[in-house]
Amino acid sequence: MQTKPTPSYSTTIRIEYPNVVGMLGKLTSTIGEAGGDIGSIDIIKTSKNMITRDITFSATSEEHIEQIIDKIRQLSNVTIKHITDKTFAVHNKGKIEIGLKHTIRTREDLSMVYTPGVARVCMDIYKHPKHVYNYTIKANTIAIVTDGTAVLGLGDIGPHAALPVMEGKAMLFKQFADVDAYPICLDTKEPDKIIEVIKCISPVFGGINLEDISAPRCFEIEETLRNELNIPVFHDDQHGTAVVVLAALINALKIVKKEINKIKIVISGAGAAGLACAKLLFYAGVNSSNVIICDSKGPIYKGRKEGMNRYKEEIAKITNKRNIKTNIKDALKGADVFIGTSGPGLLKPDDIKNMAKDSIIFAMANPIPEIMPEEAEGIARIVATGRSDYPNQINNVLCFPGFFRGLLDAKATTVTYDMKIASSYAIANLIKPTELNEEYIIPSPFDKRVPKAVADAVEGVVKKMKKK
Amino acid sequence: MQTKPTPSYSTTIRIEYPNVVGMLGKLTSTIGEAGGDIGSIDIIKTSKNMITRDITFSATSEEHIEQIIDKIRQLSNVTIKHITDKTFAVHNKGKIEIGLKHTIRTREDLSMVYTPGVARVCMDIYKHPKHVYNYTIKANTIAIVTDGTAVLGLGDIGPHAALPVMEGKAMLFKQFADVDAYPICLDTKEPDKIIEVIKCISPVFGGINLEDISAPRCFEIEETLRNELNIPVFHDDQHGTAVVVLAALINALKIVKKEINKIKIVISGAGAAGLACAKLLFYAGVNSSNVIICDSKGPIYKGRKEGMNRYKEEIAKITNKRNIKTNIKDALKGADVFIGTSGPGLLKPDDIKNMAKDSIIFAMANPIPEIMPEEAEGIARIVATGRSDYPNQINNVLCFPGFFRGLLDAKATTVTYDMKIASSYAIANLIKPTELNEEYIIPSPFDKRVPKAVADAVEGVVKKMKKK
Repeated sequence: MQTKPTPSYSTTIRIEYPNVVGMLGKLTSTIGEAGGDIGSIDIIKTSKNMITRDITFSATSEEHIEQIIDKIRQLSNVTIKHITDKTFAVHNKGKIEIGLKHTIRTREDLSMVYTPGVARVCMDIYKHPKHVYNYTIKANTIAIVTDGTAVLGLGDIGPHAALPVMEGKAMLFKQFADVDAYPICLDTKEPDKIIEVIKCISPVFGGINLEDISAPRCFEIEETLRNELNIPVFHDDQHGTAVVVLAALINALKIVKKEINKIKIVISGAGAAGLACAKLLFYAGVNSSNVIICDSKGPIYKGRKEGMNRYKEEIAKITNKRNIKTNIKDALKGADVFIGTSGPGLLKPDDIKNMAKDSIIFAMANPIPEIMPEEAEGIARIVATGRSDYPNQINNVLCFPGFFRGLLDAKATTVTYDMKIASSYAIANLIKPTELNEEYIIPSPFDKRVPKAVADAVEGVVKKMKKK
Repeated sequence: MQTKPTPSYSTTIRIEYPNVVGMLGKLTSTIGEAGGDIGSIDIIKTSKNMITRDITFSATSEEHIEQIIDKIRQLSNVTIKHITDKTFAVHNKGKIEIGLKHTIRTREDLSMVYTPGVARVCMDIYKHPKHVYNYTIKANTIAIVTDGTAVLGLGDIGPHAALPVMEGKAMLFKQFADVDAYPICLDTKEPDKIIEVIKCISPVFGGINLEDISAPRCFEIEETLRNELNIPVFHDDQHGTAVVVLAALINALKIVKKEINKIKIVISGAGAAGLACAKLLFYAGVNSSNVIICDSKGPIYKGRKEGMNRYKEEIAKITNKRNIKTNIKDALKGADVFIGTSGPGLLKPDDIKNMAKDSIIFAMANPIPEIMPEEAEGIARIVATGRSDYPNQINNVLCFPGFFRGLLDAKATTVTYDMKIASSYAIANLIKPTELNEEYIIPSPFDKRVPKAVADAVEGVVKKMKKK
């Protein structure tokens, strides 16, 4: 389904060939004709007759890389010396490491950071437990905990295969908000055991970010930990998504001039993200009667028997007041907003045509959205996706680094709805009224103002809580 | 008991005073007379009449710092602007952080280290589980796991107060052998739970370093994990100590020209370190009949009732063939070697006088040894301690960084006695016969050859195992 070359399939090929005019042109046109998107070209070595170059190109798939290389192999006088898959190369032995804040050069250094000096710090913490936030990594450290059951769009691939994602997430935490995040991938799927392990390892961490744990287990795990731990617990797939969706919705509604308490919403997907979005939207003022949540069995309604769990039962009580039981197409009739946290290609242009005027589509399935923006063009007023190659990218990274920055700075012990709402408004309000338009309802993940705005919002709420 | 100023009590005091001749002399002599050991003196600011300096000094205790500062306060025209306790200062918000191996600057970077590119790496690991060692931090990462029950000389201070030590240890791993070690401090003391948690978190780690877990629980925990995990597990307080003790003993025996299979040894302390030393010594050729292990109740012998556990029972069967039941003084009569892993000031010079000619004393209680080197001088032939301010420092750091470096590089799945013995000989053999003398039986912790020698030794053993 991937049609454009992407850096995910970026490849560097080292080629040696006769140093004569026209050869480079032949090479680059061969790659281009095979569908490769050429990036940098570097000279590695030249001799009297021969030249060695590194040519980097993007492709659409691993097969496509092979096809391009085959074409190059067919050129005469060309020798392939080396092929580097850049994505695999950046993963070599992992993407994060331990950084030391002080170098140990002398016995004096050793005696301060380690024994005997460290004993003084230990005893200080022993006597004043709160000092653990002054003198240890707990002050700035969170755990990214997963059991590998719901990784990206890949599903239950286990704790080992999930690790590259958790490392990537740790990079984002550090890069965007200077939060030290450490991946903890668990070799168990039992909720009770996951809860127990997280409680046991909690002394080192100032917060817990739950990640890629499948629903409905993730709800129980988060809820129990919230009650039993005195550090904040946040399941990013739920609340990170919800915060950014609400931010985008706040701005989209400004454009279409509709009020949040009057809009009709259809949510596709009743997993972690879908249900969390619904709950945050209710808290933000959306009338739950006007919301219909659909899963693979169709709309969720009171009394439905198939594919229910206690979280869906709860939601069935307060949503779908029109009692639509048939399918998502019927649910969408007259809806103002579609929020997709489900699967690829679920919607057709005709479904959108039946929505209300100035409809808003957040098609966030990754990498293939519920409907491609091209298909919705001219029908929906505003379209957002999870992808970086279309406008309006709804990306969790707008929330989680700043959110934990704020939690840590405020020494928060829990996470509240007010924090999430404040974060959504902080993100939305970074876009000035004069900048706001159909293709710019949400800041870029690289907008440097975002993490600070979110952190300040979270801290602000904690300060208010403490005053009360 | 601490009589010399130490960098553990290093303090920087910022002082403003009239810029006139003789004032600095008055200040430094005040600190010197009060027993402070002056280090660096820096100018911070000078104006026409006034000068501000930072004076750093070491003291013997927190009370001593206060006394010195009081003396300075009594000087006229001197204003103390700021006092920094340097040991606490280096612990500010912890001593380690997450380092990124690649910076995320662009969407292209993001799409390789995180979604969508990372999915390719995840699926590769899912299909080829061993590739987790190629593309994740598991390749170079170990966990330092403690429950905080036997921290340094401090005892059961809990997981939070233990964290500064674990962070310090993580620094040593990185600095000395480029091993990424992460502290895991557990909020439980139940062996079964500790075992369960470590098994659950093991996917991220290429090895487990158990740390500061009290005996005899540490034996059971290590043994079970060895059997149930396919990554190496190493309890440093046991084996790190044992490896370095054996290294020191190998060289000490060269000096006194005694053979390892004939010497008589008394070990004081039947905790983690004491019992592990005994076992490694047996494996290295010491005749167990010639060894007497003492604990707080005196010599361990077959049939003793008081203060036994199954590990002491086992050792009682094969040691102390002379069946000494009275006390350590009697045990020491005629012994060649004393190994102390117990408490301060346990031995008197007279006890050593009763040992065999050319006796060897390893008094490793920290910070106060079983006997101070000054007291043993002229009686014992060779004295070693755990301290950095006397010759022959028996320091675990000689072993653990290189040992894990070797385990990780060799992709070892377990730890064997052969690895430990090879490491001891590797450490010992770094000192050439011409260099070897009573005050130089063991390399310095800052001897850069040590980690590589130990790593090579461990790798060598693994390679031999794989050939078989």
